[in-house]
Amino acid sequence: MVALSRPIAIYDTTLRDGAQREGIALSLEDKLRIVRQLDGLGIPFIEGGWPGANPKDVQFFLHLQEIKLTQAEIVAFCSTRRPHRAAHEDPMLQPILAAGTRWVTVFGKSWNLHVTEGLKTSLAENLEMIRDTLQFLTAQGRRVIYDAEHWFDGYDDDPSYALKTLEAAILGGAEWLVLCDTNGGRLPDEIKTITQAVLTFLDQYQRENPAQPLPGLGIHTHNDSGVAVANALAAVQSGARMVQGTMNGYGERCGNANLCTLIPNLQLKLGYDCIFPSQLEKLTPTSRLISEIVNLAPDDHAPFVGLSAFAHKGGIHVSAVQRNPRTYEHLEPHLVGNQRRIVVSDQAGLSNILAKAASLGLSLDRQHPVSRDILSQLKQLESQGYQFEAAEASFELLIRDALGQRPAWFSLKGFDVSCRSGDWGTTGLESQSLATIKVAVNNTEILTAAEGNGPVSALDAALRKALLTFYPAIATFHLTDYKVRILDGLAGTSANTRVLVESSNGHERWTTVGVSTNIITASYQAVTESLEYGLLLASKETISPELTSV
Amino acid sequence: MVALSRPIAIYDTTLRDGAQREGIALSLEDKLRIVRQLDGLGIPFIEGGWPGANPKDVQFFLHLQEIKLTQAEIVAFCSTRRPHRAAHEDPMLQPILAAGTRWVTVFGKSWNLHVTEGLKTSLAENLEMIRDTLQFLTAQGRRVIYDAEHWFDGYDDDPSYALKTLEAAILGGAEWLVLCDTNGGRLPDEIKTITQAVLTFLDQYQRENPAQPLPGLGIHTHNDSGVAVANALAAVQSGARMVQGTMNGYGERCGNANLCTLIPNLQLKLGYDCIFPSQLEKLTPTSRLISEIVNLAPDDHAPFVGLSAFAHKGGIHVSAVQRNPRTYEHLEPHLVGNQRRIVVSDQAGLSNILAKAASLGLSLDRQHPVSRDILSQLKQLESQGYQFEAAEASFELLIRDALGQRPAWFSLKGFDVSCRSGDWGTTGLESQSLATIKVAVNNTEILTAAEGNGPVSALDAALRKALLTFYPAIATFHLTDYKVRILDGLAGTSANTRVLVESSNGHERWTTVGVSTNIITASYQAVTESLEYGLLLASKETISPELTSV
Repeated sequence: MVALSRPIAIYDTTLRDGAQREGIALSLEDKLRIVRQLDGLGIPFIEGGWPGANPKDVQFFLHLQEIKLTQAEIVAFCSTRRPHRAAHEDPMLQPILAAGTRWVTVFGKSWNLHVTEGLKTSLAENLEMIRDTLQFLTAQGRRVIYDAEHWFDGYDDDPSYALKTLEAAILGGAEWLVLCDTNGGRLPDEIKTITQAVLTFLDQYQRENPAQPLPGLGIHTHNDSGVAVANALAAVQSGARMVQGTMNGYGERCGNANLCTLIPNLQLKLGYDCIFPSQLEKLTPTSRLISEIVNLAPDDHAPFVGLSAFAHKGGIHVSAVQRNPRTYEHLEPHLVGNQRRIVVSDQAGLSNILAKAASLGLSLDRQHPVSRDILSQLKQLESQGYQFEAAEASFELLIRDALGQRPAWFSLKGFDVSCRSGDWGTTGLESQSLATIKVAVNNTEILTAAEGNGPVSALDAALRKALLTFYPAIATFHLTDYKVRILDGLAGTSANTRVLVESSNGHERWTTVGVSTNIITASYQAVTESLEYGLLLASKETISPELTSV
Repeated sequence: MVALSRPIAIYDTTLRDGAQREGIALSLEDKLRIVRQLDGLGIPFIEGGWPGANPKDVQFFLHLQEIKLTQAEIVAFCSTRRPHRAAHEDPMLQPILAAGTRWVTVFGKSWNLHVTEGLKTSLAENLEMIRDTLQFLTAQGRRVIYDAEHWFDGYDDDPSYALKTLEAAILGGAEWLVLCDTNGGRLPDEIKTITQAVLTFLDQYQRENPAQPLPGLGIHTHNDSGVAVANALAAVQSGARMVQGTMNGYGERCGNANLCTLIPNLQLKLGYDCIFPSQLEKLTPTSRLISEIVNLAPDDHAPFVGLSAFAHKGGIHVSAVQRNPRTYEHLEPHLVGNQRRIVVSDQAGLSNILAKAASLGLSLDRQHPVSRDILSQLKQLESQGYQFEAAEASFELLIRDALGQRPAWFSLKGFDVSCRSGDWGTTGLESQSLATIKVAVNNTEILTAAEGNGPVSALDAALRKALLTFYPAIATFHLTDYKVRILDGLAGTSANTRVLVESSNGHERWTTVGVSTNIITASYQAVTESLEYGLLLASKETISPELTSV
């Protein structure tokens, strides 16, 4: 370990508190993959779960003993023992020891209300539960972190009792006392004031008990007031030296403090040391990979790591940021492993287009008439409702077309799609779609048909069927997202429709666009461009740097 | 206006800064609908856009002059005049006056770097641009808000020049000076320190210029560091009295400060007055309706207004929160129009349904088995992707069905719709749709066909054609909005599709819903329910109180 001058211990609880988010269900393998990612990112403490709470967590800790981690400590999590039962006799604590971790986090009650209403025991017994549980674990050689649940609400209700619970944890041998805003309702100023009060208490305690080693202070926040990150920063600026949070801010209700936001703020803005700069550059890919593992769409607008976090629109703005990034960027995107992105939109000037083309590896000359042609074509298409900011693959095809660099993989000769339905059955309206399609590859015409559970899936199936023999790579393509937007609702069902189709070949993802008053035609257009772009990728030796990795 | 004891002026910029978010493209009607929503929520300042920047914004301000708003001021937005050209000679400012608003927000440069590198003019000329632009507008009777762009970065670089720009705005007659963290990189402590420095400057300025009326201070923050809300709170706690932000935090890159988070924090936690408590209860429905209008999925994990913001998992936890909400909730969800949600079990409780039915003028008895039937049917439909929040007409039909009060105007016997297209023409892919339909009215079967420029408009036309002779009232019905949402993007073109159709008879508007893997079937379902509901309205003597007036 390199000595850090202003160290902050980052404590990740994605696998336990993060997994409480609705929609997350992690397999054993998911959990192990996340551990390896977090270890690679340099996170020193990774909370693995509550051994014994379910069979999966027992298996997880067993498997962990076989994995070599660079530096991360996996932490087992549990509550204090039951009331009126000695810790060494509480069966809940046996699997905690069996998990074989060096560190254990124990959470206990700080709030008198929760002791009497939740645990239904006496305030004195709760103090004993904390001290006894910690003492039992430390006597067994474990190092202990104490999570003071509902700390801030408890302190507000009865500061003197709340401080007694911390004293019990110190007597039990806790190396860290972590102040938790469990309900997530607090604001930064309250966090600051109460954290400072705890430090004052600890100072005084130290003077009165000079022989007792003093634990460090930590913070654990939730986002119910939308300020979880600011609350954690406020605690650090008041003296906390451990920060608990989750990757991408996953967690119950509104989530936990987002480590992907906290780490760069602490390290790049406030000058604390959390992870090495080379690890910080892994932040964006790690964030996105973890969103893939938990199977949630990444938040494109997430600070630091989002796809749009360093996106720029508008002509003057774009040329300014290229001359001097400081004018429109709060920090250099590469520091967190992200990149600047020039968004193409109807505000686009020529600089945008040139920058975008360059980032796609296409050379465009500002003086060449083709550049002006592309700009005017783009504006005309956008006035019809096309939108290229979310459809970079279609934009690349458009530029290639203007440059004469768009290969003619196939040409479309026509389609016919029909949906037919009888009367309302017992399960609603049932219908079946059939698509007939004619395409030409070189001089061979293919006429084929396919069925689907909707007109677009039937068309997609027919198109693939027709082209697969010529281009086997198509077998690896699949649609990953499909979005529809009616552009001017007031025209009712005759309105223009914009369709965005996202596809993947297992390595890259790309998005194409189609617009028409006819939703089928718009979808057909986006789906054919999607296949065309996939074939272009398959033929390229080098992969365009702008493509997102899956 | 009721006198407020600790007033904060909320300033919404969803229509301008919010619309910069990638993926948002607002039609004129979208903008007008959002204005009506914000006015209903009690937002006093609504920034409408930059008149003259594009034809849509000119139209918008024209239409606004015909709309009666309860209390909101629509604000026109523009920059300071061009360098070395008097404000009265700058053609950019003419459409600003023509927009006819009482209030205008002018943004100007605070950061010397942006003056010399961006505007490419002298520091002195920038001061003159600010003063001259504001003086010109106030001389024309406008009240002016001055947005100090890049304020915090500019102040850091050269505090004395930055303060001179504010002085120029005061001399120009600004009533508000708004400090902007344009790049969104600042943290709460910096915001606090610099806001306090500005107030000290204003105090001193007031002492030296006692005759000059002093403007109020405002704050405008972006979320690039994940602390936009905390930054705005820090400024307010330091003395700012106007807060700029957007609904749902929409905005470029990582978004603007989220008003749906800021307003409850300011009002319920810090004791400031922003809107009336009865308006605060509209916060959640307004947030969700605006996400429908901009066609972005609502963030279920958003603080205060998210579907999961007050969700509880696990039995003990749930019974604890029911005994004493304070144990696990930071505030009462109904205060912001949200509700507690018990995950895994009932989303919609019986009370909800009874309340909803009562508001539609339908009497339902809690004890009657039909009430439980409706609840279970509703849950089943919602699990398939139906959403009745935005489709009250379909909800009313569902309740009437269960009560045996749904008249059988017609029955559907079947449809066949086809789209056919040749090869790509010079203007893209042209196609034509044909729909054949069979319906029965009483015992008469009607078989008819119609064409359309898309499959849904062909189906709609065929259905009207078939029914018009029986129900002449149908001639007054027309579709006013049509929205499509793909419910599970990851399933590609086979995903479930939800269609919302809004119709009008010239007096009332109503919305119906359809869900299917087949977009044609989903649309057909929503369109037929829409006709059915229109016929129900035409037959009613009293109009349901829940219907929105056109």
